Amino acid sequence: MANTKRFSGILTPNITPVDARGNIDEDKLRGYVDWLIDHGVDGLYPNGSTGEFVRFTPEERRRIVTIVVDQTRGRIPVLAGAAEANANETIAACNAYGDMGVQAVAIVAPFYYRLGSEAVYQYFREIANAVRVDVTLYNIPLFASPIPVEVVVRLANDCPRVVGIKDSSGDVPNMMRMIAAIRPMRDDFTFLTGWDASLAVMLIAGADGGTNATSGVVPELTRALHRSVVAGQIEEAMRLQYQLIPIFDAMISLGEFPEGFRAGTRARGWDLGPGRMPISDDQREKIRAMQSHIDGLVAAVTPSLNQN
Amino acid sequence: MANTKRFSGILTPNITPVDARGNIDEDKLRGYVDWLIDHGVDGLYPNGSTGEFVRFTPEERRRIVTIVVDQTRGRIPVLAGAAEANANETIAACNAYGDMGVQAVAIVAPFYYRLGSEAVYQYFREIANAVRVDVTLYNIPLFASPIPVEVVVRLANDCPRVVGIKDSSGDVPNMMRMIAAIRPMRDDFTFLTGWDASLAVMLIAGADGGTNATSGVVPELTRALHRSVVAGQIEEAMRLQYQLIPIFDAMISLGEFPEGFRAGTRARGWDLGPGRMPISDDQREKIRAMQSHIDGLVAAVTPSLNQN
Amino acid sequence: MANTKRFSGILTPNITPVDARGNIDEDKLRGYVDWLIDHGVDGLYPNGSTGEFVRFTPEERRRIVTIVVDQTRGRIPVLAGAAEANANETIAACNAYGDMGVQAVAIVAPFYYRLGSEAVYQYFREIANAVRVDVTLYNIPLFASPIPVEVVVRLANDCPRVVGIKDSSGDVPNMMRMIAAIRPMRDDFTFLTGWDASLAVMLIAGADGGTNATSGVVPELTRALHRSVVAGQIEEAMRLQYQLIPIFDAMISLGEFPEGFRAGTRARGWDLGPGRMPISDDQREKIRAMQSHIDGLVAAVTPSLNQN
Amino acid sequence: MANTKRFSGILTPNITPVDARGNIDEDKLRGYVDWLIDHGVDGLYPNGSTGEFVRFTPEERRRIVTIVVDQTRGRIPVLAGAAEANANETIAACNAYGDMGVQAVAIVAPFYYRLGSEAVYQYFREIANAVRVDVTLYNIPLFASPIPVEVVVRLANDCPRVVGIKDSSGDVPNMMRMIAAIRPMRDDFTFLTGWDASLAVMLIAGADGGTNATSGVVPELTRALHRSVVAGQIEEAMRLQYQLIPIFDAMISLGEFPEGFRAGTRARGWDLGPGRMPISDDQREKIRAMQSHIDGLVAAVTPSLNQN
Repeated sequence: MANTKRFSGILTPNITPVDARGNIDEDKLRGYVDWLIDHGVDGLYPNGSTGEFVRFTPEERRRIVTIVVDQTRGRIPVLAGAAEANANETIAACNAYGDMGVQAVAIVAPFYYRLGSEAVYQYFREIANAVRVDVTLYNIPLFASPIPVEVVVRLANDCPRVVGIKDSSGDVPNMMRMIAAIRPMRDDFTFLTGWDASLAVMLIAGADGGTNATSGVVPELTRALHRSVVAGQIEEAMRLQYQLIPIFDAMISLGEFPEGFRAGTRARGWDLGPGRMPISDDQREKIRAMQSHIDGLVAAVTPSLNQN
Repeated sequence: MANTKRFSGILTPNITPVDARGNIDEDKLRGYVDWLIDHGVDGLYPNGSTGEFVRFTPEERRRIVTIVVDQTRGRIPVLAGAAEANANETIAACNAYGDMGVQAVAIVAPFYYRLGSEAVYQYFREIANAVRVDVTLYNIPLFASPIPVEVVVRLANDCPRVVGIKDSSGDVPNMMRMIAAIRPMRDDFTFLTGWDASLAVMLIAGADGGTNATSGVVPELTRALHRSVVAGQIEEAMRLQYQLIPIFDAMISLGEFPEGFRAGTRARGWDLGPGRMPISDDQREKIRAMQSHIDGLVAAVTPSLNQN
Repeated sequence: MANTKRFSGILTPNITPVDARGNIDEDKLRGYVDWLIDHGVDGLYPNGSTGEFVRFTPEERRRIVTIVVDQTRGRIPVLAGAAEANANETIAACNAYGDMGVQAVAIVAPFYYRLGSEAVYQYFREIANAVRVDVTLYNIPLFASPIPVEVVVRLANDCPRVVGIKDSSGDVPNMMRMIAAIRPMRDDFTFLTGWDASLAVMLIAGADGGTNATSGVVPELTRALHRSVVAGQIEEAMRLQYQLIPIFDAMISLGEFPEGFRAGTRARGWDLGPGRMPISDDQREKIRAMQSHIDGLVAAVTPSLNQN
Repeated sequence: MANTKRFSGILTPNITPVDARGNIDEDKLRGYVDWLIDHGVDGLYPNGSTGEFVRFTPEERRRIVTIVVDQTRGRIPVLAGAAEANANETIAACNAYGDMGVQAVAIVAPFYYRLGSEAVYQYFREIANAVRVDVTLYNIPLFASPIPVEVVVRLANDCPRVVGIKDSSGDVPNMMRMIAAIRPMRDDFTFLTGWDASLAVMLIAGADGGTNATSGVVPELTRALHRSVVAGQIEEAMRLQYQLIPIFDAMISLGEFPEGFRAGTRARGWDLGPGRMPISDDQREKIRAMQSHIDGLVAAVTPSLNQN
């Protein structure tokens, strides 16, 4: 049985709704949070990559977490992305979010520069030893300095405040290497996967849950998939994973990330605005042309799921 | 139920035994083939990457297949690596192996040059349309031109002689994409994984089997793992996969590939010689120093398995 | 003869001095600016990668430019790094810096996410069409989304405000492809290289100058190298480049970038503080152990140069 | 002044002419060798990447060298590509080519597997200590295991038979690092570049010459470029390099390498056949459609050069 302190299930790295002028759309954000909770997500993850955290200012990032925590009202846990320009700024954000009542923060490894493992370790240790909130490491080697398995193990061993890893590499064997090394000494340590295309096999391999962008579009499907694995219904979990992949593929390849996921939410009736990257008329037209394809993919999986 | 025409289970990409002067050691090869069959492997795969096919001459490669087929005497299927310098030479090797009685050949995509997908498609199609033996595609993007999912699908559609794919990328979602696209139209198409660290999840995701270097060292473990998945005992399969990973990691990281796997076979009593790449005294000493670690890892998993 | 509107020579991407608590050290920054100007650099480039721009807050970045512009007092041009969280924030920073009197701003392509070329084009066009200051593109594919040659050409063609490219890829043929395509239509367009190890050959190939971290350590050497190329003394330029490479190699490989360059400035008497990334005691000790090696490399080239 | 034992100038990695059935076209090969010598190339380099050495059998590779040596009749030096399946086979080929009278052999680092630097060192040392012909290392990290700078330096130091490096990485600083480390101790060591787009700057940086596929198409241009650098006419050399890049770009990007260079030779009246990789009708049509573009690029540079 899973340790009750661990995160479990599917946390949604929610898109940040913006209005026509590109400002945070608070009403939409509150409404979307309610919709996600109503559709069964197990947690929220504001200021993740899907939330375009790097494209918002430090003040905006705090406002996003404030709104999400306030609207959630403790119904489900909130894992707040807290990476800022440097360790000191990140520590301040962590503590601010902790004071707001988030269950934990998630901190991506330093990006832009590609740091070696010793520097990555040092960065997280400095933060973990200074904050008064639990910290989840966020490994996304495609975008940020990689957090090698041995660094995760060292941090789990050295820093009680480090309580989990969110891994978006999609590397199943690495997930298993981390679980094998850490779980015997830290029963409270959470393993989450951020790579939707591997969600089922990651859960089968021992991960506690996922922080998956698709859960912001088809939360019923990702929830059912997670519950199937928990219930030991592996064939059903794989059947749902086979449904999830084409939806994920269509959204991840549509325009620049996370434009495709914005198209996905439109298929559910949520127009969350245009995103923070300028896009050309051609690109906008191309996305519009693909909307009905996305609509169809989403519709194909949601009715049956809604009947459950 | 699996189509009976498909490969199923674990095929061993066998190391090529050499004597002190670096020549093929026929006696060792025959003995090792018998040992593998006695220990339950489901097939043999001479002239794979583990067999160092590129370090042997065309004549030697044919002799290796001749010996393996002869010694196997039909007890288990043989999948023979048949890549040669160009399409014509490869076609000749394919037909020679077909005449010897192999069940199929495996052909790696062109290497050295990195070809685009159209050229890769064209290469395989030319071969598949000319040979009188079944062909398995071999995708190993780390070493050779990648065979993208859509090329595999096109070849499965266009070429009846293409009967399977051996994928060593370890990419579970890509395996699922191929299965989703091909299985509905080709029930006879075999999906094999060559990445041992992902073996269990690949099988759970729908692959028919694996061609795994570790099966040349701990065939009982890889067999038990495969049988567990087939029997729906997923927890047991994952438990065995958790045992397999450290063994695989130790062997894959020891010296240059496949030196670590030669050390692995020594742990089972098979000294298959020094390999075809010159190694320094330092490297030799380092491998020797790790032998007892490898021995221990292998011993830890084999006794219990032997009791099954 | 070079268009007089173009940047020319060596601009220093200056390290940002910090005090023991990690705050911007204004006195050191002012003193270091004077020292650089006294030692012959042709321009200053605050908020570059060497200046660790991503590790400072938006407010700090503005303060850095304010100080540098104020201290420079028009003696040499200032090219201010102006990348912020998104296009709107970047536009605001550009205009603020323009109002301060910088000659131009430099804007790195979006980082964290890896954008495709169309999005990169769109991002720069949106900014360039909105600002009232000249813009230099900053291509550093190791850290940020690449700006392909064709995007640079399109922007040079479409946006009068885009007046140059700073390329840190070190790719000489790509520099020549850009020069060949753009110079005929835009005589005012500046080509700068940011890869010190290729400085001489980039200048010989037609670049106007460089923004080189080594110029913050051995400004006499980079200046002499540039002047040699301008004077057609190619053998001398290459002799100086052969001196520059080992200095660059020693600094670029010491600790995490730009720690080695901080060690370099210490060799010139400037202790600019510890940088903004936490480093371990081991790393600190290792850097200290290398200091005399750096000192020696720097001393070997500066006396003779000082005599010129 | 260059050591007279060194290679100097431009050696052509010649395309291997084949007839309609794909067999070596001896008459064409002899004619093309004469044409290259008549047009001023400084050496020939059969069995290089441009010659598609991996797509020919061991017997064919020997026949290619036999023909080229015989036809050259000592007019210019021959550098024969000698890489075979393993060290022993390579040693045998080296000695065979040495007996034929080649000036040296060129050996690419092991490919398919990506070897570490110690194994690469060991491989070359074993060969160099066994052969009776001079050996040039061939570094092409895009296709084969990289030969790091320090390995080249160690081999230059340890193995008198290793007399040069052909580097196709295009990395100018690495070329300078090798020259700086090796030339003081080995005045007989030749540095050649295989990356045509960097030819002029490599020569300016100190390389002795190049083995450039474009020299098989526009030998007058590459010769003039080399002679300009030797004469200290750097502006002229760069002017020619600016002419060379678009020709190189057009040929390198046309179909799969080296199809574009075959199109280039057709622009000079040499139809050297279809290459050894099967290509589709679409690809063939696309290449045909680009022929006049290639013709135009080549014609634009050759008349003026012929007048020199």
